[in-house]
Amino acid sequence: MKKSIALLILLLTALANAGEPRPPSQVIAEAPAAHWRRAAPENTLYLELENGRVIIELAEQLAPGHVANIKALTHERFYDGLSVYRVIEGFVAQGGDMDGNKPVGEGKRTIPAEFSRKNIPAKQFTPLPGPDGYAPQTGFVHGFPAARDPKTGDTWLVHCNGAFAMAREQSIDSGGTEFYAVIGPAQRYLDRNTTVFGRVLEGMEILQQLERGNQAGGVLENPDNNRIVRMRVAADLPDKEREEFEVLKTDSSSFRELIAARSNRPEDWFVARPDYVDVCSVGIPTRRAN
Amino acid sequence: MKKSIALLILLLTALANAGEPRPPSQVIAEAPAAHWRRAAPENTLYLELENGRVIIELAEQLAPGHVANIKALTHERFYDGLSVYRVIEGFVAQGGDMDGNKPVGEGKRTIPAEFSRKNIPAKQFTPLPGPDGYAPQTGFVHGFPAARDPKTGDTWLVHCNGAFAMAREQSIDSGGTEFYAVIGPAQRYLDRNTTVFGRVLEGMEILQQLERGNQAGGVLENPDNNRIVRMRVAADLPDKEREEFEVLKTDSSSFRELIAARSNRPEDWFVARPDYVDVCSVGIPTRRAN
Repeated sequence: MKKSIALLILLLTALANAGEPRPPSQVIAEAPAAHWRRAAPENTLYLELENGRVIIELAEQLAPGHVANIKALTHERFYDGLSVYRVIEGFVAQGGDMDGNKPVGEGKRTIPAEFSRKNIPAKQFTPLPGPDGYAPQTGFVHGFPAARDPKTGDTWLVHCNGAFAMAREQSIDSGGTEFYAVIGPAQRYLDRNTTVFGRVLEGMEILQQLERGNQAGGVLENPDNNRIVRMRVAADLPDKEREEFEVLKTDSSSFRELIAARSNRPEDWFVARPDYVDVCSVGIPTRRAN
Repeated sequence: MKKSIALLILLLTALANAGEPRPPSQVIAEAPAAHWRRAAPENTLYLELENGRVIIELAEQLAPGHVANIKALTHERFYDGLSVYRVIEGFVAQGGDMDGNKPVGEGKRTIPAEFSRKNIPAKQFTPLPGPDGYAPQTGFVHGFPAARDPKTGDTWLVHCNGAFAMAREQSIDSGGTEFYAVIGPAQRYLDRNTTVFGRVLEGMEILQQLERGNQAGGVLENPDNNRIVRMRVAADLPDKEREEFEVLKTDSSSFRELIAARSNRPEDWFVARPDYVDVCSVGIPTRRAN
C-alpha cells in the first residue's frame, strides 16, 4: 500500500514535470521524500573548531581505507587539540599533526592511496551530458561529485569546493592523517593525485573564517590559532549533540531534473543560457533533518 | 641600449625555458620585470570593511560604463556607511544600497548593461587551448579571465572566484550601484547575464570573513554587521595610504608558459596530469609593488 502511494507520488511528480521547466530552487523544494537519503551518522565527521562545527560526509564506497582510518584516528581522539595549520586563501585548509610526532593506535600514519576505484558499477554513476577538460566523463556517485573513465572503469571523486581529501608527501602511499578541504574554486588538477574521501555538508563558512598561513607553503606562524577543539564521528555522540542531514539522492529523477535546470535556467531573469553545467557547479542539495 | 638589454634578457629567458619545463611557482618567480604591469591606481578600488581592505582592479576596456559609474559613485562617497548586505556561502558577497534610497549625484542608479564587447581585437585575447562547456573559447584579456565567441567577435569577462560584477533586477539595464564579488567556486552560468567589470586582486579572505545572510535570498538580518567603512579609488588617496600592485601580463610569454605549466604540472609529485586547465584555475599572478 505504501509502495503504491509512493508510485502515485512519483507519477504525479512526473506529470507535473512534463509542464513548464522548474527552476532549481523549486526542483529541490518539491523533491519527494523518497528522493532524499539520510547522511549516515557513522560516516559523518564533526570537525569542531573554536568558531563552530564543520560537518563532513565520508565516502565509504569510494575510499573505504581512508574512511576507516580517519574514523579510527577520530575514535582514539588523535585530532583533538591538533590544528588546521595550513590555510591558503582560495585553495585549501589542511589539518592534522603538523609535527608528525603524535602517537597513533589503531589509526595509521600512512595508508595505501585510493585515488580511484574500479568496482563502482557504471549504473551507480549519474553522468553529466557536457564536456569536461579534466576527465573523460563527469557526474555523481553515491552523493558525491565524481569522474569516470569508461575505458578503464575507474571512478574517482573530484576536487570541487568542499572536497575533503588526504594530503600526502612524495610517495603516493604516504598520506593517512593530514586531511584537507578545498576552500576555493575547484582544484581539479589535484584529481587522482590525492585521495578524495568526503565532502563538507555544512560549515564551509567556518573553514573560510580560519586564519590564513603566512609562512612558506601557507603554514601558520601560530597554528594553535586554528585549533581543533575535537573531532567526532556523529554516531558516537548522544542524540542531542547530533545534527542530522538529508542529501538529495544523486541517482533520483529530482537530481537529474536539477542538472537540467542548472544547465538551462528557466527563470525569466536569465538572458544567456549555456546549456551546460560543470560537475562542481550543480551543487548537491543538503538539508537539516532535525 | 636599455632595449637591447631587455631583448637579451628575453632571449636568455627563452633559452632557459627551452630546457626542463618549469613549475608554476618558478615561472612566476622568474618572470622578467617587463612581463609585469602596474595595476593603474585610477582603476583600482579599495573596498574598506571593518576587518580590512579589499582591493579590486577595474576592467576599463571591457566595461567602460560600469567602471566610470562606480568611480563616480565612489568619488561622491556613495558607498561609505552602506553595507555588504547579501552574503551567501560559496556564492557571492553583494554590497551597496539595499534600500535603494540613498541619493546619487554624478553616479547613476542604473546604467546600460555591458555583458560583452565587440571592439576587443582577437590579438588582445590570449586563448586557452582546451574545451570549455560555457563558451566557444576562453582565455585572458587585459589581465582578466574572459571568454570569446569567434563567430560574433564578442568578448566578455567570466565569473571566476573573485570576479567583481554588477547585480541587476529583471531588466538587463537595471544595474548600476549594487556590486557583488564571487566568493566561491566559479559561477559561470552568470556569464553574460550580468556585467563583470573587475576582479579582486587582494582581500578575498576579508570577504570570506563577512557574516553570511540568513534571510531570504541571503540577506543579513543586520546588514550593518558588514558595514562599508569607505570605498575609495586608489589614485585619490595619498601615497602612504596606497598599496601598489603588479599583475603578470596575460599576453606575455611568461603567462603563456604558466598556462602550459598549470595544464601539465612538471613537479614529480604529480602522478596524474590532465593536460588541461580551465580559465578560472590558471590564476593571474599578482604581487605587491611597494
